[in-house]
Amino acid sequence: MRTEDMILVSVDDHVVEPPDVFDNHLPAKYKDIAPRLEHMPDGTDRWKFLDIEIPNVGLNAVAGRPKDEYGLDPTSFEELRPGTYDVHQRVLDMSANGVLGSLNFPSLPGFAGRLFAAVDDKDAALALTRAYNDWHIEEWCGAAPDRFIPLAIPPIWDAEAVAGEVRRVAAKGCHALTFPENPVPLGYPSLHDEYWNPVWRACSDEGTIVNMHIGSSSKLVMTAPDAPIDVMITLQPMNIVQCAADLIYSPIIRDFPDVTVALSEGGIGWIPYFLERLDHTFTTHSAWTLSDFGGRLPSEVFMERVILCFIEDDFGARQAREIGTSRICIETDYPHSDAIWPDAPERLTQAFAGTDLTDAEIDEMTHLNAMRFFRYDPFSIRPRERCTVAALRAEAEGHDVSVQAKGRRSEREGPMTLSGFNPTA
Amino acid sequence: MRTEDMILVSVDDHVVEPPDVFDNHLPAKYKDIAPRLEHMPDGTDRWKFLDIEIPNVGLNAVAGRPKDEYGLDPTSFEELRPGTYDVHQRVLDMSANGVLGSLNFPSLPGFAGRLFAAVDDKDAALALTRAYNDWHIEEWCGAAPDRFIPLAIPPIWDAEAVAGEVRRVAAKGCHALTFPENPVPLGYPSLHDEYWNPVWRACSDEGTIVNMHIGSSSKLVMTAPDAPIDVMITLQPMNIVQCAADLIYSPIIRDFPDVTVALSEGGIGWIPYFLERLDHTFTTHSAWTLSDFGGRLPSEVFMERVILCFIEDDFGARQAREIGTSRICIETDYPHSDAIWPDAPERLTQAFAGTDLTDAEIDEMTHLNAMRFFRYDPFSIRPRERCTVAALRAEAEGHDVSVQAKGRRSEREGPMTLSGFNPTA
Repeated sequence: MRTEDMILVSVDDHVVEPPDVFDNHLPAKYKDIAPRLEHMPDGTDRWKFLDIEIPNVGLNAVAGRPKDEYGLDPTSFEELRPGTYDVHQRVLDMSANGVLGSLNFPSLPGFAGRLFAAVDDKDAALALTRAYNDWHIEEWCGAAPDRFIPLAIPPIWDAEAVAGEVRRVAAKGCHALTFPENPVPLGYPSLHDEYWNPVWRACSDEGTIVNMHIGSSSKLVMTAPDAPIDVMITLQPMNIVQCAADLIYSPIIRDFPDVTVALSEGGIGWIPYFLERLDHTFTTHSAWTLSDFGGRLPSEVFMERVILCFIEDDFGARQAREIGTSRICIETDYPHSDAIWPDAPERLTQAFAGTDLTDAEIDEMTHLNAMRFFRYDPFSIRPRERCTVAALRAEAEGHDVSVQAKGRRSEREGPMTLSGFNPTA
Repeated sequence: MRTEDMILVSVDDHVVEPPDVFDNHLPAKYKDIAPRLEHMPDGTDRWKFLDIEIPNVGLNAVAGRPKDEYGLDPTSFEELRPGTYDVHQRVLDMSANGVLGSLNFPSLPGFAGRLFAAVDDKDAALALTRAYNDWHIEEWCGAAPDRFIPLAIPPIWDAEAVAGEVRRVAAKGCHALTFPENPVPLGYPSLHDEYWNPVWRACSDEGTIVNMHIGSSSKLVMTAPDAPIDVMITLQPMNIVQCAADLIYSPIIRDFPDVTVALSEGGIGWIPYFLERLDHTFTTHSAWTLSDFGGRLPSEVFMERVILCFIEDDFGARQAREIGTSRICIETDYPHSDAIWPDAPERLTQAFAGTDLTDAEIDEMTHLNAMRFFRYDPFSIRPRERCTVAALRAEAEGHDVSVQAKGRRSEREGPMTLSGFNPTA
């Protein structure tokens, strides 16, 4: 597979909401409570919502900045690459990275849309959620339907409302839902609780993929208050293994055979070990735990029901055939610090270079699986030959992707610990 | 490698303390406070210590029972295989399993010796700890010095006392210490705190291996109160990854280059993914986190400082050469439910059958590494040809290893959840 011939669809990127996100889709009576962006005298921007102030306008949106500026989350739009919040610039950033398609997780409302749960008036909270999804589907993704896979946020405080929103957005062509990898730290019933069954029923009916992103429980992996922050950064992706273990024993997999769950940003290199451990637990302990997979092994069931995703995982790429190339998708994570941008094609080429994967297997992982699972059909709009890395980069010729310092970096002298870190995800 | 020619040294097994554990090594003035075993009218046994009652006399010691009896921890010595608490029977159980040598973690005092911390009089607490270690070194291991690697428990409430105990037992030939994989849940400073430096200094001076066993923080992996217990069983070994990430950023590895840490029962199949993630975190984030490994990669440093261990991990065995066979040891986990007993040789043969490992590499993992790291020299007592699987099994010919039901099993009708589980480890 030549780098320039690859076709790349990323199932994990992030949008930074522009100031006008709530302007066009929120009923007039709720305009007053919508989050609003304020430009401060010191040059920073902050979102204000109810009594909540959110000074981090871009989550971890550091793409395009030098690595020594990765440590502080952006506090103004001036610090952000326009491609983070301007969809036309985003398309250029994607093209410059050779990326055809992209699924974008939210920033402001949290990965699982939890922000709006803070509103006591749940009609208003639902209106905000719908307005957000309408903006995302119609304005963001709608600006370039050949380039985006829409992703809805849930009104997470109410399972029936989530189910309703899944059905509502499906009618608009959105077949992806972001959902917390573990609702318990957010104060909601666990993945084991049948409370969520209406959601899975709706996803089953509508062919909607459930996307569980690392960190979406809003709980960081915290080994100790004085652990250097590197410990959390190291552990955060692999922590999705807890969600994976919950899933295989949950009603989602047990009772809803047509629902598929994507483990977003979870990596894949740990999967073979995990599958063996699943089966070992079953064969050793099911005689007393009474777990039951209908005569099958949990590893078989698991691999039929999940989408596995990786940004950079060379070891995982070498295990891709054993894991199953039909269940693996790539991610670029733009514009976060772990992003492969603007050199995703080169990094993926390097990952695949260490393998004997066929072009057909690579095509599955780079775009065919994503197209199939998410009902995303760019070739109906844009001929396939215009979708390759080479073709897209040619379209973005001259687009500036150089590293640009914003002159703002941490002034710490020593390592940052978790207790000194203020998570806002 | 023929099964019968293997030589097996397990660096993770467990002793169940017999009723007389405190009879011979505790100063007379502390006799009254020692834990004592009481036989109850209902046929159960329980340890009593201060105001603490411990009805689980054998932790998870279910070896030799049918799988449908694995769910309940033993509550009487009658339920236990004598090899769990009687050292002469233990040696026969080891021989029948083809196992030459074994390192035994404690049951009653907890993996990190935390039980004795409950005594307000810390002189008494230290006396109990010393008495326990003396019993373990002199009576348990001393009964068959060619068959055991002694392992000391720490007086965990006081770093200086731990250091003193490391030095005291080293003089008795004990070069292994059990230590919590994370002291924070136990109420002590984290692995990042220099508070523990005296311990690492003592281990460095005495050539003592620090053994961090899964679960030794006494904190189970708990995703949700209503998660089936299978979720915890699945996740518990891999959870050692949190300890591994702490270690690489801790004073142990940074400041004590001669200290080696064993990740007991941690498995190995996740290691290649983890090492790549360590390096990715470093190359992507060290410009702002200021982490520093002296010009080297964290993966290189990590692999020079740890001992990795596995019971059953066929995928991991296939990665053993890439991981490094000089850092991997085997475990049998007798007498717990994950134990490979009495068929460790056959299970290991199966694991190695899927690899192209040489006999020399297999010898490293099955015994040579354990002998080198733990200063264990059985061949000075017992000629090598009497140490093989075949030779040991011949010595135990006729020893009964048949599965024996005790007629006690869970009466639950449905799956057990974590909230219904009473951990006692």
